[in-house]
Amino acid sequence: MHYYNDDRRKAGMRLIGFALLVAMGCCFAEDSGDFKPATSNVLDAQYPRVDGSSRVQIRFKAPDASKVRVNFWSGPKADIDKQPDGFWTFITPPMAPGLHYYTVIVDGAEVSDPGSTAYFGGSKWASAVEVPEAGATYYSPQSVPHGEVREIWYHSNVTGTWRHALVYTPPEYDTQPKQRYPVLYLQHGAGEDESGWTRQGKANFILDNLIASGKAKPMIIVMANGYARRADQPAPNLAGKPFGSPEMRKAMQDMMSAFEDDMTQALIPFIDSTFRTSSDRDHRAMAGLSMGGMQTFHITFDHLELFSYIGGFSGAMNVFATGGQKPDIKTGFNGAMADPDAFSKRVHLLWVGVGTNEPERMKQGLEQLHASLDEAKIQHVFYESPGTDHEWQTWRRDLNDFAPRLFQPHSDKAATP
Amino acid sequence: MHYYNDDRRKAGMRLIGFALLVAMGCCFAEDSGDFKPATSNVLDAQYPRVDGSSRVQIRFKAPDASKVRVNFWSGPKADIDKQPDGFWTFITPPMAPGLHYYTVIVDGAEVSDPGSTAYFGGSKWASAVEVPEAGATYYSPQSVPHGEVREIWYHSNVTGTWRHALVYTPPEYDTQPKQRYPVLYLQHGAGEDESGWTRQGKANFILDNLIASGKAKPMIIVMANGYARRADQPAPNLAGKPFGSPEMRKAMQDMMSAFEDDMTQALIPFIDSTFRTSSDRDHRAMAGLSMGGMQTFHITFDHLELFSYIGGFSGAMNVFATGGQKPDIKTGFNGAMADPDAFSKRVHLLWVGVGTNEPERMKQGLEQLHASLDEAKIQHVFYESPGTDHEWQTWRRDLNDFAPRLFQPHSDKAATP
Repeated sequence: MHYYNDDRRKAGMRLIGFALLVAMGCCFAEDSGDFKPATSNVLDAQYPRVDGSSRVQIRFKAPDASKVRVNFWSGPKADIDKQPDGFWTFITPPMAPGLHYYTVIVDGAEVSDPGSTAYFGGSKWASAVEVPEAGATYYSPQSVPHGEVREIWYHSNVTGTWRHALVYTPPEYDTQPKQRYPVLYLQHGAGEDESGWTRQGKANFILDNLIASGKAKPMIIVMANGYARRADQPAPNLAGKPFGSPEMRKAMQDMMSAFEDDMTQALIPFIDSTFRTSSDRDHRAMAGLSMGGMQTFHITFDHLELFSYIGGFSGAMNVFATGGQKPDIKTGFNGAMADPDAFSKRVHLLWVGVGTNEPERMKQGLEQLHASLDEAKIQHVFYESPGTDHEWQTWRRDLNDFAPRLFQPHSDKAATP
Repeated sequence: MHYYNDDRRKAGMRLIGFALLVAMGCCFAEDSGDFKPATSNVLDAQYPRVDGSSRVQIRFKAPDASKVRVNFWSGPKADIDKQPDGFWTFITPPMAPGLHYYTVIVDGAEVSDPGSTAYFGGSKWASAVEVPEAGATYYSPQSVPHGEVREIWYHSNVTGTWRHALVYTPPEYDTQPKQRYPVLYLQHGAGEDESGWTRQGKANFILDNLIASGKAKPMIIVMANGYARRADQPAPNLAGKPFGSPEMRKAMQDMMSAFEDDMTQALIPFIDSTFRTSSDRDHRAMAGLSMGGMQTFHITFDHLELFSYIGGFSGAMNVFATGGQKPDIKTGFNGAMADPDAFSKRVHLLWVGVGTNEPERMKQGLEQLHASLDEAKIQHVFYESPGTDHEWQTWRRDLNDFAPRLFQPHSDKAATP
């Protein structure tokens, strides 16, 4: 690079210099022992940091605050210490591997840490810190062909709006113009949005790596926004309504039902007409985490004519399995599992997963579901992610186990419903 | 949607209900006169709000704070008032149309407003509020075919890393598999990143609308990350170095130079081998805003063998035009403009834009450049965006004026350099 006229250049550089400087936080690095900036930080932000024993170090500027707390949603919640320089610092105990959402509470204001990349969770753009898992490369970008993640907009007659979704296309998609691909619909959790599976979940890198190693079939993944309201439906007004009230339940059911129709009547037809999909039920799967798992079970059991692979990650079927009662496999679920043999021929995969460190109620609900499915002789996979909570490391592992089981030959099963 | 077993269902819904509730901020709407939630808010967040006279109403929860300020980067900076309910509120004077970055300062901690979508600016995920422009539909999604915005990853031997970029493909891209398309490289400003042109700038909707109306040629737009560091280059340590010091200038030059090589040696070859591009210079343009404009001028004047359309949005060439001196058109710029006729034959478009409410120094620098180009008889377009500042509304208008001028027939110009 040659500079044309260095004197004049200097003056111009000064004009944009300050903003640029901010972008180079690197410049003001301080050494801090074994701690290194988290890979989830923005640009070269130095905090939060993670050390070799998976402790997280927070450093947050709030010179005039009287009380600052950190709030790891699945981790420590603690008052933290003010340093003489106006920064507040905290070091966590060793954390489980994975991406941990957290916020900082400054004199009662719950906010995000500006050092962190923003991840949409808890219905806001929250902070999070990535704690590496030793030896785990399956969700990092490797030297393999990379698929694309495409933002698409489709018009929904159900909601009367343009809706945004993300679509992963496998690496070979553009070079094999005659090939058609199976599709996995993959849903986020409550308080998250369609960006979660790639930003937090690294779904694209997980699939890139699985496809490169031959473990998973090349497939398209569609990640939609799981919130919906019908075109003619006013926003619910739940002010003053207690939790669990009939009004609140109705609002939730309305939302779930609108999303079901949006997905089956607007999204799936759009995807099948826009991408080179194999559009029969043998080549369509759905999975989701937490609320997305619940949506998966509602939508797939309502529409077995559309789906033949079903995955619930942390919460999927527990909607049927709580309150200390065993789920009624024979009579529940639209009666779809009343005949186990017929069900197993029709549904190529029923997959249920949970992290072993998830809240007791979630864990017990899913363990009980697993036992009941066994008892009813319903073929299924039950996967436990060791040591992880109701967090993204559980769901990354879920996807890594689930995706290779999709769209494989089923010699012992009927090909059509 | 039918519910299978309503009793058990209720229990399960309760489990995920709380998170879902948070996602339905709508439920707790309060009326507030003419003010309506900004279109830039998350989900159904009720604040910030905008009224018919373009005033913005902020409402921020910080029950224990002793001082809260709002900081509109190109707008009011003010202490705001605490209400008895623990929220702090503020109403701005009428604002110019467009997207306005702002932060909230809580007892000295500068943070984002959780009600806002996060936009990467100022080297962090910042808040912003969209103030509508009456009658302006060119950057909104319309009932026209929509292109895709694709996330791609390319490996750069210059930086030794996988790098992320966004690529807009026009609506017809996948249905016209034999068609090749021209490419516009479009760069963000300092403190922003490759997400800016679509998230803040709405570049995809601007192009969708221009293409649908026949005003712009279908084209590919590549939005890259403008920060780069060479593989063998340690992070600069500028601790204690004063602003404008030789060390700081060198760090900035190193970054600019690394990006130039990354773009010309890694990104452009990747794009041309991955997408159906027309890869000659007659079908390649580059533009950028602020720092991205500066990068555009450096890279295009260094590589006129690669580019034939050049756009600088708010800051582009002012690097050559400050300090009260008139830019030296004849001898500067690698001598490319020494012969105006030859230059105009080689460069199909030289485009310079500025907002009339931008800081005086920026405005004067660009006005002076315009005058000097006129004096030297260099064909160019000078565009002034009425009433807008060094903000995205200026750059949306710039793109809307610039894009239709690209890749059109040039009957009076040589087709090749």
